[in-house]
Parts: sequence; C-alpha cells; structure tokens
Amino acid sequence: MITKYKPLASSRGGRTTKTQTTKTNVKPIARPFRSIRAKPEHIIDSKNKLRIMCLGGLEEVGRNMTVMEYDDDIIIIDMGLQFPEEDMPGIDYIIPDISYLKNKADKIRGVIITHGHYDHIGAIPHLIGQLGNPPIFTGKLTAGLIRKRCEEFRQCPKLNIAEINETSSLQLGKAFKVEFLRVNHSIPDSFAVVVNTPIGVIIHTGDFKIDYSPVNDKPADLNRIAQIGGKGVLFLMSDSTDSTESGYQISESSIGDEIDKLFEKITGRIIIGTFASQLSRIQKIFDLAHKHGRKIYLQGRSMNGNVEIAHQIGYLKFNPRILIRDAELRQSPDDKIIILGTGAQAEANAFLMRVVNREHRLISLKPGDTVIFSSSIIPGNERTIQNLKDMIVRQGAKVIHYIMMDVHAGGHAKQEDLKLMMRLLKPKYFLPIEGSHYMLRAHAELAEQVGIAKENIFVADNGQIIEFSKRGEETVGRLTEEKAPTDYVMVDGLGVGDVSNIVLRDRRVMSEDGMIVVIATIDSKTGEPIGNPDIISRGFVYMKENRELIESTRMRVKKIVKEHDPRVPANDDYIKNKIRNDVGQFLFSRTKRRPMVLPVVIKV
Amino acid sequence: MITKYKPLASSRGGRTTKTQTTKTNVKPIARPFRSIRAKPEHIIDSKNKLRIMCLGGLEEVGRNMTVMEYDDDIIIIDMGLQFPEEDMPGIDYIIPDISYLKNKADKIRGVIITHGHYDHIGAIPHLIGQLGNPPIFTGKLTAGLIRKRCEEFRQCPKLNIAEINETSSLQLGKAFKVEFLRVNHSIPDSFAVVVNTPIGVIIHTGDFKIDYSPVNDKPADLNRIAQIGGKGVLFLMSDSTDSTESGYQISESSIGDEIDKLFEKITGRIIIGTFASQLSRIQKIFDLAHKHGRKIYLQGRSMNGNVEIAHQIGYLKFNPRILIRDAELRQSPDDKIIILGTGAQAEANAFLMRVVNREHRLISLKPGDTVIFSSSIIPGNERTIQNLKDMIVRQGAKVIHYIMMDVHAGGHAKQEDLKLMMRLLKPKYFLPIEGSHYMLRAHAELAEQVGIAKENIFVADNGQIIEFSKRGEETVGRLTEEKAPTDYVMVDGLGVGDVSNIVLRDRRVMSEDGMIVVIATIDSKTGEPIGNPDIISRGFVYMKENRELIESTRMRVKKIVKEHDPRVPANDDYIKNKIRNDVGQFLFSRTKRRPMVLPVVIKV
Repeated sequence: MITKYKPLASSRGGRTTKTQTTKTNVKPIARPFRSIRAKPEHIIDSKNKLRIMCLGGLEEVGRNMTVMEYDDDIIIIDMGLQFPEEDMPGIDYIIPDISYLKNKADKIRGVIITHGHYDHIGAIPHLIGQLGNPPIFTGKLTAGLIRKRCEEFRQCPKLNIAEINETSSLQLGKAFKVEFLRVNHSIPDSFAVVVNTPIGVIIHTGDFKIDYSPVNDKPADLNRIAQIGGKGVLFLMSDSTDSTESGYQISESSIGDEIDKLFEKITGRIIIGTFASQLSRIQKIFDLAHKHGRKIYLQGRSMNGNVEIAHQIGYLKFNPRILIRDAELRQSPDDKIIILGTGAQAEANAFLMRVVNREHRLISLKPGDTVIFSSSIIPGNERTIQNLKDMIVRQGAKVIHYIMMDVHAGGHAKQEDLKLMMRLLKPKYFLPIEGSHYMLRAHAELAEQVGIAKENIFVADNGQIIEFSKRGEETVGRLTEEKAPTDYVMVDGLGVGDVSNIVLRDRRVMSEDGMIVVIATIDSKTGEPIGNPDIISRGFVYMKENRELIESTRMRVKKIVKEHDPRVPANDDYIKNKIRNDVGQFLFSRTKRRPMVLPVVIKV
Repeated sequence: MITKYKPLASSRGGRTTKTQTTKTNVKPIARPFRSIRAKPEHIIDSKNKLRIMCLGGLEEVGRNMTVMEYDDDIIIIDMGLQFPEEDMPGIDYIIPDISYLKNKADKIRGVIITHGHYDHIGAIPHLIGQLGNPPIFTGKLTAGLIRKRCEEFRQCPKLNIAEINETSSLQLGKAFKVEFLRVNHSIPDSFAVVVNTPIGVIIHTGDFKIDYSPVNDKPADLNRIAQIGGKGVLFLMSDSTDSTESGYQISESSIGDEIDKLFEKITGRIIIGTFASQLSRIQKIFDLAHKHGRKIYLQGRSMNGNVEIAHQIGYLKFNPRILIRDAELRQSPDDKIIILGTGAQAEANAFLMRVVNREHRLISLKPGDTVIFSSSIIPGNERTIQNLKDMIVRQGAKVIHYIMMDVHAGGHAKQEDLKLMMRLLKPKYFLPIEGSHYMLRAHAELAEQVGIAKENIFVADNGQIIEFSKRGEETVGRLTEEKAPTDYVMVDGLGVGDVSNIVLRDRRVMSEDGMIVVIATIDSKTGEPIGNPDIISRGFVYMKENRELIESTRMRVKKIVKEHDPRVPANDDYIKNKIRNDVGQFLFSRTKRRPMVLPVVIKV
C-alpha cells in the first residue's frame, strides 16, 4: 500500500488570527499566508541539506520529539511528555519547546508516532494545534490511544489520523518517503521508522526490544531490518533507555511463564498492579486467568479505557465473559478472582493506593490475598512504593515484586540487543536517542564496539542540529554548533509554559522553610506606624507555640518603621527591603531556617 | 574484664530545674527527686517483668532505639536518627520520641551503642541531656565518632563514655549484665549486645553481616555466638535491613579484589565517592593506593574527620605519607592520584557535587578521569544521582557504578546469613528489628523457616511493648497491646519537635501550587473598603504575566467587602472565610491550581 499524502494548506485550518490569546496562556504560533515572500528562512546554503534535531529525549527519558527538515519539507517523529524532575514541585509534566517550528507550520508534512506511550504521544493535545494540526500517521492501537487522550483536552483540535502498518509507505512532501518496521516493546503496534531522503536512508527505532516470542504481537522483523541494512543505512537513531544494562532483555513470554507458576501456587485472591499501558502484560494476564479458571475484575480509569480500546480493535483478545462486575465479584470464591488495576508506582489516586487507604468502595485487603507488582520501579518512586508495600502487608496480604521473582521484563533493548540492531543495520552515522546523557554515552560506546567509526557517532544535546549533505558522491554528516531552543515548557493545571523558574524557585523556598508575611500599616501623613504590624506565618513555625518569636519579630518591624525619618518621603521599597533583610536575618539567627519574608506596607 | 557500673544519681547531673526552657524548644524532661514516694509507676503487677520496646526502627530504616526495663533498671540500646520522608520538606532529620522515659531518667543505667552510624548515634546530642546524661558504653571507634558529632551541638552535655570491647562485661543496675559479641558491618567496631537478665538471655544484633574475611576488622565470632546459643537464648532481636535479599552478603574483601582489578585498568586519575562512614571500604582503598603506587587526596569534611579519628585510634592503618595536600596534587602525574571524597549520593554540598558544579577550588573533571561510585543508592536519591552522573560524563570523565561492576558489598546480612544467625542462637522468641514493616515480615518468615515457633515470632510496631515474665519455671513472652508514644520528632534547623503536621502540610500545599495573600483595608466606621485590595502571589503564577487574573481577583475581593452589610458589626473571620473560599474557587476554575489563599483584613 502506498499512501501519498500531500496536504493542502486549507485542509489544516487555514488562516489563524495572529493575536489570538487563550485563557491557558498557550502562545499559538501564527501561520503565515502562503506566499513566496513569506519564506525568508530559506537561505541558499541550507538548500539540499537534511537537518535533524531532537527537541527532547536526549537529556532525559521522556519528552521525545524528533524533527527532520529538508528544503520545504518537515516531518516530526513522536510528540511526548516528560514527568517532572524532583525540583519542580506542583508541575504536572513537561512538553517540548517548539519555537524552532514557529512560522514553519505550513512545511510540516506529517507527524509520525512510533507507539502509544505518553512519552511519545503525551504532548499532542498541547502542540498539534499550534503546528497547524498536521496529519498524524501511526498504528491502529496508538491511534485509539491518541484519540482518547485528546478527548481530555478542550484545546485539542479534531485530529487527522491515518493508520499505518508495516506494509505502509508514505510520500510526505517531496523529500521524505516513509516506511515502517515492526519492533517489540511493552505495548503492541510499536514501529521503527524508515525515512528515505534524497541523500540517504535514516532509521529511527522508537522504543524497542527484540523479542522472538512476544505476547500478542508479531516479533520484530529482523529479516527486513537486515535487508535494509544490506542496502545501506546513512543514519541510525536508536533507543538508549537500557544501554547501561548488560546482556539481553527477557522475552515477554518467559515472564508469562513465571506469572503462570505464581498463579499455580496462589489459592486466595490475586491482585495485580501494573501500568495500564503495558498491554502485552495485560494480555498475558487475561490468558492466564482463562487457563486458571479465574475471572478478572478491572480497576482504574486508564486500565478500563485502554483495555476497552485495545479489545475493540482486536489487539487484546479475550472472551468478554471473563470480565466481572461488582455483583459477581461479591459472589465469586477468592480462588476464582483476579483483580487487575493500576497503581504499582504508588500513584496517589490509583487503584492500589485507594485500596490500602480503605477508600475503595468494594475492595479491602485480607489475609490470603496476594498482591503482585508487575512493573519496574520508576526512579524516584522507591520510597512511596516501599510505604505502599508496608501498608499492604500490614493489612494481611502477601506482596510479590519482580525483585523477588522475575515478574518483570522491560520494554527496552539491553546492550546485546542494541549491538544486534547496529550489526544488522550497519549505519554510517549513529545517534543514541531516548535517554539521559549518561545513557547516550553508554550507547555510543557500544556503537564503537560494533565498529561504527568513532567520528561518526554523535552524542548530542536536545535541539542540537545534525546536518547531512552531499559532498560529491558521498553524503557527509556533522554535528553542528547550531541549536534549536529546548526550554522546559511546563504544564501545571490549565497553564502551559506559564510556570517560570521564578515561580518554581518560590515553591522550593516555601517548601523548605515556609514563609512569613509582615504587614505594616503606616500613617501616610506622619510616617508613623498605626497599631502593631500583622504577621502571618505558614510552613515556618507553628505560631501558637512560638508567640515570643513572633512578638519579637513584630517589635523589630515596628522599630524599623518608627525609625524611618518621617521627613524623607516614605519610600516603600526601602522600608520593605529593610524589613525583609532584618527579619530574615533575625529569624535565621533564632531558628537556622530561612523562610521567605514578604513585607507589605499599607499607607492610610 | 568485668566493669561494674552502678551510677549514683548525683553523678549524672542531679537536680534540674523543672521550668528550664531553651531557645531550641527542646522540652527537657524534669528529673524528680529520689524518694520512695516519687515512684508511682511501679505498679505491683509489673514487678519482675522484663519489658522491651523499640522507640524507632520497626517502621523505617533508621531512628534505632531500644529500651529494656526490669523493675528499677532501664538500659537503652542505640539512639539514632532517621532521614526525612519525601513528604517532609525542609526537615533535617527525625529522632525518637522519648516520652516513655519521662520521669524515668534516674533509672537509666546506661546507653549501649552498637556502632558508629548516624541511624544509631545521631540522636545522642539531642536526647542524652534530657535523659540525665547517663553513661554511654561503646567501642573505641564509635566513641570517637560520637564525641565528634556532639561537638557540633551546643546543647550536648559533656558525655560520659566508657569504651568496651568483646571481652567487656558490665553490670548495669541489678537486672542487667551486658556482654558484647563482635559482628561485621560496613564500619569496624560493630557489636551485637548480649543482655543477661533475671529471666533469660536477650540478644540484640545491631546492624550486622557475616564476613569471614572482613577488611580491617575481626570476623564475627561465630564460635562464641554458637556457644551462647547452646546455653539457651530467650529472645533474639535481629537486623532486617536486607531480609528481602536472597542469598549471602558478599565479603568486603572480594569487593576489594574487584576494586583492585579496576585500578589496574585505569591510567588517569581515580576519583572515588563513598560514605565517610564506610571505613572498611576506605581502608581497602588506602591499601590499594599503596599497592598501585598512588597517593590519596582526601576531600569532604566528614571524610577528613572520620579518617583522622579512625587513624588516631589505630582503626585505619596507613602510612601518613600516602596522604597528599594541594601542592603535591598539582605536581603529581594523573596515574599517581586517587581523590577520595564524599557525595556518591549526590548530596548538595558534598565533594562530588562541588566538583561537577565547578565550585571546587582545585579540582575539575577532565577526559581520562574515572569516577567510581562506591556506595549503594539510598532509595529516593536515584534521580539526583542520575543527574550527577550525566554531569560527570559531560565533563569528559568515565563513571563506574556498582551496578556495572560489583564495587559494592552491603553492610547487612541477607536471607541465608540471617538464617545462620538464628540457627546458631536458637532463640525461643524472635523480634525482627531495623526495617520497614515489609522487611520485618520477610524476616519473620525466615524465622519460621528455621523452626522458631510461629506464635513466638513478634512483628511489632514502634513503641509496642513486649513483656517477659516467669510462669513457674518457664519464661513466657507476649506482645502486649500497650504502646509507648513514638511520634515523629522532627529536627529543622535549631528547632526540635516544633515542626508540627500543620507546618508540614502548609509547606506541601505551598510547594504544589504556591500561595496568594489578599489584603483588604477596611474603614472600621463605615465597613467600606479603602482603596483596592493588595495581592501578593508566590509560587502560583508569575504576576507580571497574569495581570488580568490578578485584577479579576482584586475586584472580587473588593466586591465581597463592599457587599458586607455595614450595619452588621464587621466580623473579620466571616469576611476572611468568604474571601478564602471565593478566591480559591475562582482561581481553581481559571487555572486548575489550588494555591493557599491567605486573606488579611486591616481596619483603620
């Protein structure tokens, strides 16, 4: 199947008003009228060059987004989100900075999504409208998951999604002919992307593992990968998530065997926590439920949603009668039940946490229950998961985690798998992607080990532009010094990009030592203080137990105001600064804490 | 050597004034005058009973403190701190709640410290004074570390420390005869405690591992442990930290061999980050430095302090000429240098972090350097350590972590070691200690496996009292329902126990969505607003970019004040609540954030 896709400007929203502003502070990118004069960015020396950059995913695990540009054509691979770092309190997630694409919306020929995880699809609702709503090309399951995610966002336009599979071939603009390679991952319908360009073949692996016996998915097509390698690959961009892990990734089916053995031993209820997106694992659990004569009670909004979508389109295969509702759950004997839910990362409102907090309307734990954590620990969640396990065993249930028995197979290729991919594809140039800098370096070392020339291995930062051009017959690549902007764009509630570093810094300061508001009321005629200053403290000390400290602070403030020369026109900033410094130092000397001091001067 | 220690009341500070208060809000425990009437707590039915409780260490890793009480005699084992949980922003650490010991200071015959780590000694400066400064019994190295820690605290009294070793025997009060068993751990001079009581032998292992070939320490004395087991042990309290880990702990010397191999391959500078308290590892590094002809440049205050103490008392053996200072560091070739410092947990101000932040006055990383992380990752530090590694490799150095090569051996017994300890001691009753509830349960299961009667295995909570008494010839133990208070006592700056849950909750709220102060000035005669309300926001939205939102909020507040019926005597709380609710809802509807709203009403 060859799908030629050459979108017309009018099919993607046409004109947008330039001054449009929204409540959510998303700054829309105005799309210019199509005219020859409106393309000043086409400078002659960038002609016939292929420019590739990752707007995210080279300095973190997450926020994956790759841009390829050749003359008038741009394609994008993935548009993901990143979960916030520990020093970003209150932030929901981070999305890529798309400033580079500003005024280039009319060149975007398509967005290719490799698979349905949030670090690859999560930013679509926020960004696709700003990019002129270009068409999205992706697998069937991923399409379903993207549509579902967009339903949650009012600002997301009606998407234009075309489904592809491993036989699809797309002509996107003049420059790009795109094909797809099936790979394995922890979710079905994962593809690597083969981009045929005027100056060579580029391969982007997406997230992948090599699984010769995957569950509910076809194995990675190694023959075709080898064939493509045989024809010559200019540039490979490959998943680095597990590049520091030695050996081979475990097959999902061998994990299935482990879970099977577990199920045989358990006589009470089985409660399983996993990611709703781990659809291969979920399929295996359905299969084993059937085998062991157990019914499945599904829990968690995302779990229900994903299972429904995947079942509808045939990616999850089970007899609907295996699913039970409340009434049947109550009647079924314990050894006939599997409760499958979310929350193995100890997420605050997920199923498992609600159960142990006794907030679940139907389920509470009891002796005889076995809770299986069937997902690896996301770094940073260790302590909350430990607390969750404590609470579970306190309530009499057993806990089995993959550390104790190998209930977990990761979704990413490990060192030997990564080497295999490179050996098969034999790329001339190589860019490790999808990992922190440390992981990229580890992957780069593997590339050297399999014989890729050291000078052709690029370890790049987010936004750093890699340029390929013909030099005679040969195509030459180089990592340029040029860098597209890649600021953090933070999503917090409805706001996108409106939480600045100042706001974050304030949150951090207040979370460490709290804050204190000092309100001095001044007679504007005499400059004398009226009454005693008001003091409010939050997160600093408990005021009721620290009357003396608060009273001393009050007196200091009063003194500062009084001592201010009334003949000098009262300068608020001066008094405020004096209060801030004086009170700050005083409180530090007394408590060794540094609350944020907020002086307010009111004149009446 | 038999040391009889029967302290007189007068030797430990005698009378203290009851109303003494300090700046630091430590509530001192008043010690009553000694008189027969002053002992109402001696109720008849608690006579001849042994009561044991852990004031910390049964619901966490850390804050270890065990109390044993028999009639008029009390002994304490360990007095440690716990590092704060993730939902305790700004807290330095947590110490045990000693309310149970209030008014019992005159009964405390001694404090035994098993080894020199902070989770066993860290609370001494805060608590020892409140307990009447009883004598401390501990190993030579631990004594040095305790003295050093106490120097940092003004409130710490002059300590009364007696050094012990494996031949010591102490009579503490009438009830307790205490002996010591040498065990291995990641610091030398670690002891298990054998407490001979009128109704049986109690053993407290402290932290331990079994190492047949320890570095710079004697192996655990298995023969004597077996002997004691042969005579009959009533009750064993044993370290659960690694009770979920299968197999045997690795010997420190085999780790040494691994590091040796590493050193052979490295031609540039070697930079090692580890804990300053991991003195066995540090000894090995000194030995290997000698072997490989390298000099050692020590970095980090705690590293320098600990090495000095341990060297002085002969626990760390090296030729002082192996240590070099700045001048020699500058002159030495790279392959003759080892830089040994702190910061492998990515602690903010430790040596490694200062180097990568280019804040170190002498050392910056360069290609050819190898940085070795020689300590396991404390749960919760994963992401910051990942960032640290990223920064290191960015600056051209290589990173080796124990995940990649086994540079790490833990200090705690794993499952098979724990079983060995139980098999040798054959206790009648068993209490897993030093771990989260989940770890305690895992340890309890092991105890069942080695044949301890299930009903004699206690999985207790902090403060829960275990009571032993004679029933005829037999001693019977039971886990009572009685529970000593074990609230979190949080240390924050100079304050101890003054950060309440309310303060912490406020810090959490402000760290998530910031706060907004709304100040309405009202004419006290008319009830009319004077001017426009003042608004200050921090950590919520950036005010300059959200003028419209702030202005709308201002107008809403003005309206609330205006609409307040001036004939009703203006009730501040009513107006404040109205402002808080109204503004909170308004801001949530516009931003989906919930900042803390602080209304202030000023009447003039």
